[in-house]
Amino acid sequence: MSQQEFSFELKNTDNGARLGNISTPRGDIRTPAFMPVGTAATVKGMYPEQVEALGADIILGNTYHLMLRPGAERMAKLGGLHEFAQWQKPILTDSGGFQVMSLAKLRKLNENGVSFKSHIDGSSHLLTPERSIEIQTLLGADIQMQLDECVALPADLSEIKRAMELSVRWAERSKTAFGTQPGHALFGIVQGGDNEVLRLQSANELTDIGFHGYAVGGLAVGEPQATMFEVLNYTTPALPTDKPRYLMGVGKPDDLLGAVKRGIDMFDCVHPTRAGRHGHAYTRFGVINIKNARHKEDSRPLDVQSPNENCRRFQRAYLHHLMKANEMLGAMLLSQINLAYYQELMQARALQSQKTDMMITLLKPVRDGKEATSTP
Amino acid sequence: MSQQEFSFELKNTDNGARLGNISTPRGDIRTPAFMPVGTAATVKGMYPEQVEALGADIILGNTYHLMLRPGAERMAKLGGLHEFAQWQKPILTDSGGFQVMSLAKLRKLNENGVSFKSHIDGSSHLLTPERSIEIQTLLGADIQMQLDECVALPADLSEIKRAMELSVRWAERSKTAFGTQPGHALFGIVQGGDNEVLRLQSANELTDIGFHGYAVGGLAVGEPQATMFEVLNYTTPALPTDKPRYLMGVGKPDDLLGAVKRGIDMFDCVHPTRAGRHGHAYTRFGVINIKNARHKEDSRPLDVQSPNENCRRFQRAYLHHLMKANEMLGAMLLSQINLAYYQELMQARALQSQKTDMMITLLKPVRDGKEATSTP
Repeated sequence: MSQQEFSFELKNTDNGARLGNISTPRGDIRTPAFMPVGTAATVKGMYPEQVEALGADIILGNTYHLMLRPGAERMAKLGGLHEFAQWQKPILTDSGGFQVMSLAKLRKLNENGVSFKSHIDGSSHLLTPERSIEIQTLLGADIQMQLDECVALPADLSEIKRAMELSVRWAERSKTAFGTQPGHALFGIVQGGDNEVLRLQSANELTDIGFHGYAVGGLAVGEPQATMFEVLNYTTPALPTDKPRYLMGVGKPDDLLGAVKRGIDMFDCVHPTRAGRHGHAYTRFGVINIKNARHKEDSRPLDVQSPNENCRRFQRAYLHHLMKANEMLGAMLLSQINLAYYQELMQARALQSQKTDMMITLLKPVRDGKEATSTP
Repeated sequence: MSQQEFSFELKNTDNGARLGNISTPRGDIRTPAFMPVGTAATVKGMYPEQVEALGADIILGNTYHLMLRPGAERMAKLGGLHEFAQWQKPILTDSGGFQVMSLAKLRKLNENGVSFKSHIDGSSHLLTPERSIEIQTLLGADIQMQLDECVALPADLSEIKRAMELSVRWAERSKTAFGTQPGHALFGIVQGGDNEVLRLQSANELTDIGFHGYAVGGLAVGEPQATMFEVLNYTTPALPTDKPRYLMGVGKPDDLLGAVKRGIDMFDCVHPTRAGRHGHAYTRFGVINIKNARHKEDSRPLDVQSPNENCRRFQRAYLHHLMKANEMLGAMLLSQINLAYYQELMQARALQSQKTDMMITLLKPVRDGKEATSTP
């Protein structure tokens, strides 16, 4: 790998929406980008070459899961996460903090960090900003995330403020711990709940510290979509225009489109693969619940005009059958189909010579979140 | 599809071992052949194109499962099993009888057939020789099997004899029901347990009726391998040399090699995929239990010299991790790896100009059934 720097180029804008490119020694990340989630060193139900064939430029790994199994030091001995998972393109890892708070047992958070017990074997662990960076470096992550504290909404203002200020102090410690890692990046995470003053304070203080990119955290944690968009309306303008912006843990297709309009460049979410494992297929016609009995005798494919062969090839009746019979291939196909659809959503970025509103316009017909009422 | 006939060509023999080719309108089946089992219209954990890439010329479908879900008439409406499962090469279906006896509830067998209740929804069904053929024809099976009664060993001689004679009567009814189906085949099934007189009687009576191929049933049902081989020793010589011979539900690699030596041409078994889902990998070095802790930090692939990329590419530590974390990719990879190994075992058939004993010799170093004690 060359010692090429991590850099971001903003290629075009249309109102808030941005078209860009992140350069890393492991390859370019075209933005807006959706990062498939490879929680435990695998995007669930998919071969790594399938993920690459989707057009995904980067995947996400979860520090919490990987630090517990196989363990960060062991992963480093084995050559790092890229080698382990046979994924040679960029990887972003989260800090582990969010999943400690949602999955681990006996969590205790203080100024220093968060101690917890593994949900797998009950072993004790301590995650500090420094240890999180150390783990992410051992994993070999191209983009690392600061440790932060994420508060579920709704929450008391005092609680949101306390967590935001702690996150800023952890951001500084994370940056110091990260040091200089040529070709690698560290992102800060804006917190502040649904409060404009706190969000702006967080954005400004993080910008003062200086990061390779900025994430918006603490959203998609229980609030309505309108609240999330409202927070983005005042938060993204407070972020540097020359750095990538990442909305963490989001979301459904219309969340992505609304966030792209509001200046977000990167996304990750388990939703497409999880929905696939539950029999929900994302298509141009909306979400299709393939387990519904009306698909039992439907010999049509999901979308005869899809660029994705799996959407054109297999009968709805077959997908229905596979899911009803709990056959692995059902989850495999619907995970691939949904991630392909998410990548297609991001494909309008490929219109490099066009305004990004073409993307928004192109994708507007997508009706997300409800069963399509008529299909051709 | 052309109206090409179903035919078998015996290309070479070496003592008992045979090298041959079955021609069907959907393509050739090179023998000896291992048929991956696609119970519910899917080889578990594999895309159909992966199965084809293994070199498999034919897969097996289970009539019992498919008649219950999605149902034979529905499958026919949807275009048949090949279209449904997106597998265009030949398919063999069993008669359903074996799985009725092992999976269904409230089974009642009489001269006419076997009535039972579905293990899925409790619905009542009747499987007769005629209905089994009707279902297999609706599914579109290239090779169909007569309904038979299979007795678990050890068993009383009178019971073995009764079931064998019933199976012969059902064979006749099956042939009548099958009628003339150009390009399709019907196989009879030799029964008779571990009794030579009964096996020979069965083989002779079935040969008199006349089938496109002959299966040896009622083995791998609890008896030692030596018993199975002994039964083959006297059964296969009683079968016509100009028709393919199929040993049902067998087996592990050394079962296959021993049976090939004794004149068997075709096999099916769920073992390679089931073993894969349980973390057992078949390799030239023997069976590797990848969940064993000694693989936790082993960065070596399963077999650096394997023709199968998945064997060369992924670290043992990664496969170990995937299985411990219950990740689908673990079962997917080990299913592919085991089926690839089974196909490799059959590949020596590709030595068309060589004696088949080269195959046997080539494959002798395989140590099956025990954990390899040393690996390179």
